[in-house]
Amino acid sequence: MIEDKNPQRTSISQLGEFGLIEHLTKNFEINQSSTLKGIGDDAAVLDFKDKKVVVSTDIMVEGVHFDLAYMPLKHLGYKAVVSNVSDICAMNAKATQITVSIAVSNRFPLEALEELFHGITLAANEYKIDVIGGDTTSSQKGLIISITVLGEADEEEIVYRNGAKSTDLLVVTGDIGAAYMGLQVLEREKQVFQVNPNSQPDLELYTYLIERQLKPEARADVRTLLHALEIKPTAMIDISDGLSSEIIHICKQSKVGCNLYEDKLPLDPQFINVCEEFDIDSTTVAINGGEDYELLFTIPIDDFDKIKGNPNFSIIGHMTEESEGIHLVTRANTKIPLKARGWNALSE
Amino acid sequence: MIEDKNPQRTSISQLGEFGLIEHLTKNFEINQSSTLKGIGDDAAVLDFKDKKVVVSTDIMVEGVHFDLAYMPLKHLGYKAVVSNVSDICAMNAKATQITVSIAVSNRFPLEALEELFHGITLAANEYKIDVIGGDTTSSQKGLIISITVLGEADEEEIVYRNGAKSTDLLVVTGDIGAAYMGLQVLEREKQVFQVNPNSQPDLELYTYLIERQLKPEARADVRTLLHALEIKPTAMIDISDGLSSEIIHICKQSKVGCNLYEDKLPLDPQFINVCEEFDIDSTTVAINGGEDYELLFTIPIDDFDKIKGNPNFSIIGHMTEESEGIHLVTRANTKIPLKARGWNALSE
Repeated sequence: MIEDKNPQRTSISQLGEFGLIEHLTKNFEINQSSTLKGIGDDAAVLDFKDKKVVVSTDIMVEGVHFDLAYMPLKHLGYKAVVSNVSDICAMNAKATQITVSIAVSNRFPLEALEELFHGITLAANEYKIDVIGGDTTSSQKGLIISITVLGEADEEEIVYRNGAKSTDLLVVTGDIGAAYMGLQVLEREKQVFQVNPNSQPDLELYTYLIERQLKPEARADVRTLLHALEIKPTAMIDISDGLSSEIIHICKQSKVGCNLYEDKLPLDPQFINVCEEFDIDSTTVAINGGEDYELLFTIPIDDFDKIKGNPNFSIIGHMTEESEGIHLVTRANTKIPLKARGWNALSE
Repeated sequence: MIEDKNPQRTSISQLGEFGLIEHLTKNFEINQSSTLKGIGDDAAVLDFKDKKVVVSTDIMVEGVHFDLAYMPLKHLGYKAVVSNVSDICAMNAKATQITVSIAVSNRFPLEALEELFHGITLAANEYKIDVIGGDTTSSQKGLIISITVLGEADEEEIVYRNGAKSTDLLVVTGDIGAAYMGLQVLEREKQVFQVNPNSQPDLELYTYLIERQLKPEARADVRTLLHALEIKPTAMIDISDGLSSEIIHICKQSKVGCNLYEDKLPLDPQFINVCEEFDIDSTTVAINGGEDYELLFTIPIDDFDKIKGNPNFSIIGHMTEESEGIHLVTRANTKIPLKARGWNALSE
């Protein structure tokens, strides 16, 4: 499906470890004043002055988290950075630096790694974060990307998962479910391609969904939006594993319950159309599909007037006493217990 | 060779991703006052106050960096932490936190991961560092461990690789080469075991070498030792890829040359004996073998009196003008150009 536009293949073992790292990292620029020393020593040196430091990490494995049959390496590099930046956004902090470690089998030529690092560089520029270190080595099979992200915030800005109150409103940014349906579209095209490699897919009806899957963005803007509205969330999390799973995290850590309203879920029209085409229930996908990288947060009910009607935010429910449980309230006004069905990277 | 003392095998997929992470991380304690929030949110939150933050990362791959035939998982976990802490020591900083990401194939039972995390916990306690985050997922093949370490230091304490002067002395901590010969002994025992699984290896003659390979320590003490001697190195690096490779790094980044003296290399008697037994030139191993995790640094010649005769340190050479090149001066007083033959994780 994805054409190899670059037939040149340079073996990575030709360069050696130091040569490869130097080659791949030579274009990284330093943008953050907190980065005193980036790549090139035993460690990077950072100066956060009176800010608190926020740190998160994740590891992505070929065949588990991504399929190179439809995920171009440039997009993969971009998305790997985005998913980390999103974790920092979920603390109401600003991402500032990342380290990038790669394990890669020798079947990948240098040109493939260049594509991957091109995507990483694009994301670093987009979010104005510095690549300050990393490691590159062989794998026995496939590609593994491990990224650690650092960010900064004033202590009073930071939002944890455990501060929701039983009277709070539940808010989500953007729309949800589209990344999951984008993946379904790409999986289907992969099947078609395997049957007929000459087929030319017409993906125009799915552009938004595919973009949400292949080139998601982290909501680094939300921090500024909320600041301007003079709202500080009481609890916040990013939606990487699916809305219901993240609601349950907030509820458990904050010791509250929740009513989520089906008719309030923000769904893109293209998402609704494609759910119909695939004959999948859009609510099920919206609450269980992952990788949207939107932010889910709770705010005091007194902030209702500040946020209502704001196109960036949807009020999708309210918190309750813990004893009331965690429920989806359907359009038919029945209450169904929410379950964390979220995508599980360890299932067989 | 290594007996399976724990025949219990619990599938990691039974626990699910969240359950597994909770199970493996529940014993981690917080020791550092800079750790405001550890595991359990989208990100950890740290407060380094007026200290600078030092960050390093590496990734270790089964079959590339370690062989589980002779590397028990507990030792592997310990060593993975040590190799990261060592990078912070090489900045003359104090390691304070790590994140640990694991990708693991389903052939590993829960009990194996418990062993790995037991080793990580032991090292965290030994070096008083907090495990503040991580990620655990499936791999397509084998075990991959990615660790990021954070440390702290006052700005004036930090030592880079690029500060060596042409008149400085070259100093190394401890002794070198033993970790490499420990690996040779273990590789030989693996061969013996493959031929005769009932053989009982007598490894008493090799205990020091094997310990250097299987349970190395980072030189976190050197910072205190140097502080007490009122010495601040002009350049410093840790010896993970081999002495000659690290000398070349310092020389290139500091724009100086170096004379390294063969007769000054600090070698353990057991190391010399086993090199003879294996019929390998001890100098070749001492300058090219990696994984010793000792520190290599340069000091002003005026500090000679402060360090001479100190059993923790060996003066092994001196820096020169860059134009004089980088040489080993042999016992026969001939000069041989030093080459970075260091262990290369990307060679085929």
